[in-house]
Amino acid sequence: MPADLIENALALASFSPSVGYSQPWRFVRVSDPARRAAVRESFLRCNQAALANYEGERAELYARLKLAGIDDAPVHLAVFCDMETGVGLGLGRQTMPEMLEYSAAIACHTLWLAARVYGLGMGWVSILDPIEVKKTLEVPEPWKFIAYLCIGFPEEEHMDPELARHNWEQYRKPDVLER
Amino acid sequence: MPADLIENALALASFSPSVGYSQPWRFVRVSDPARRAAVRESFLRCNQAALANYEGERAELYARLKLAGIDDAPVHLAVFCDMETGVGLGLGRQTMPEMLEYSAAIACHTLWLAARVYGLGMGWVSILDPIEVKKTLEVPEPWKFIAYLCIGFPEEEHMDPELARHNWEQYRKPDVLER
Repeated sequence: MPADLIENALALASFSPSVGYSQPWRFVRVSDPARRAAVRESFLRCNQAALANYEGERAELYARLKLAGIDDAPVHLAVFCDMETGVGLGLGRQTMPEMLEYSAAIACHTLWLAARVYGLGMGWVSILDPIEVKKTLEVPEPWKFIAYLCIGFPEEEHMDPELARHNWEQYRKPDVLER
Repeated sequence: MPADLIENALALASFSPSVGYSQPWRFVRVSDPARRAAVRESFLRCNQAALANYEGERAELYARLKLAGIDDAPVHLAVFCDMETGVGLGLGRQTMPEMLEYSAAIACHTLWLAARVYGLGMGWVSILDPIEVKKTLEVPEPWKFIAYLCIGFPEEEHMDPELARHNWEQYRKPDVLER
């Protein structure tokens, strides 16, 4: 994959909106084979534990789902939120400090959309132990783990979400409450 | 504003990605003048308290910023996250339960982009007391307050973020850490 695609997608993601213009996202590109292997181990362990929550056909279905692209994706990108950033001077997050993490999560979404512009696919892996990932990647202490993103050209193109296609869950039309 | 613009934007937002396809966003349209007034009171109180964090020119600048469109926006939309939803059967959020709130926050971002498609502007107000807002809107107990969105046709169009334009904070090019 041409390196500039990821650079371009990251540049676009950095224009994502953030509370008080705090821009709290921190990107970590994971290339070292030993670190990748440690993340993979964390995924396998957490996924095994998650499987134990399901029974019968559900467990079989869970086991068949593709829940991470760790083995195949050429680019691994971890995203953190700098919980102690002074950027933005705290504007907009006195009563709702969680706005900082929401801003970092929204930057992952912006990156997702930017990646699609370049034909790239992105998988957001959350079946991981955040403490293990943080230790593995040796990032500064105030950084909170938000996402582990597997990026590459997709093997298949679909219009429907994978979990709907495999009958894990269906689309729900949202009600709007009137107040 | 034509009512179907909001309906269309909400329909697009409901295609936002979510952890385990849990679709945990819950939308509340706030039209009742008494409830709007109560939210406005919460904003004014929280904003006054926030102003006390700044001194001198910063305080003057803070006081001049437009931090909410509560008085002007025709549509007020509160967004909550259903913390007890069974949809998605917990997939992807055993080790990272916060993925549920991130999914609701990302739906707000999707709504933001959808609103822009229709020429609408959206302001995300976070200078509010979540407990007061929740009480004012009488929503189910397991719903967590995520966002209060003011939506309408913008008075001005700009390419640069408001906080940059008014020299509150500047764009930061993100570093990518290599691991």
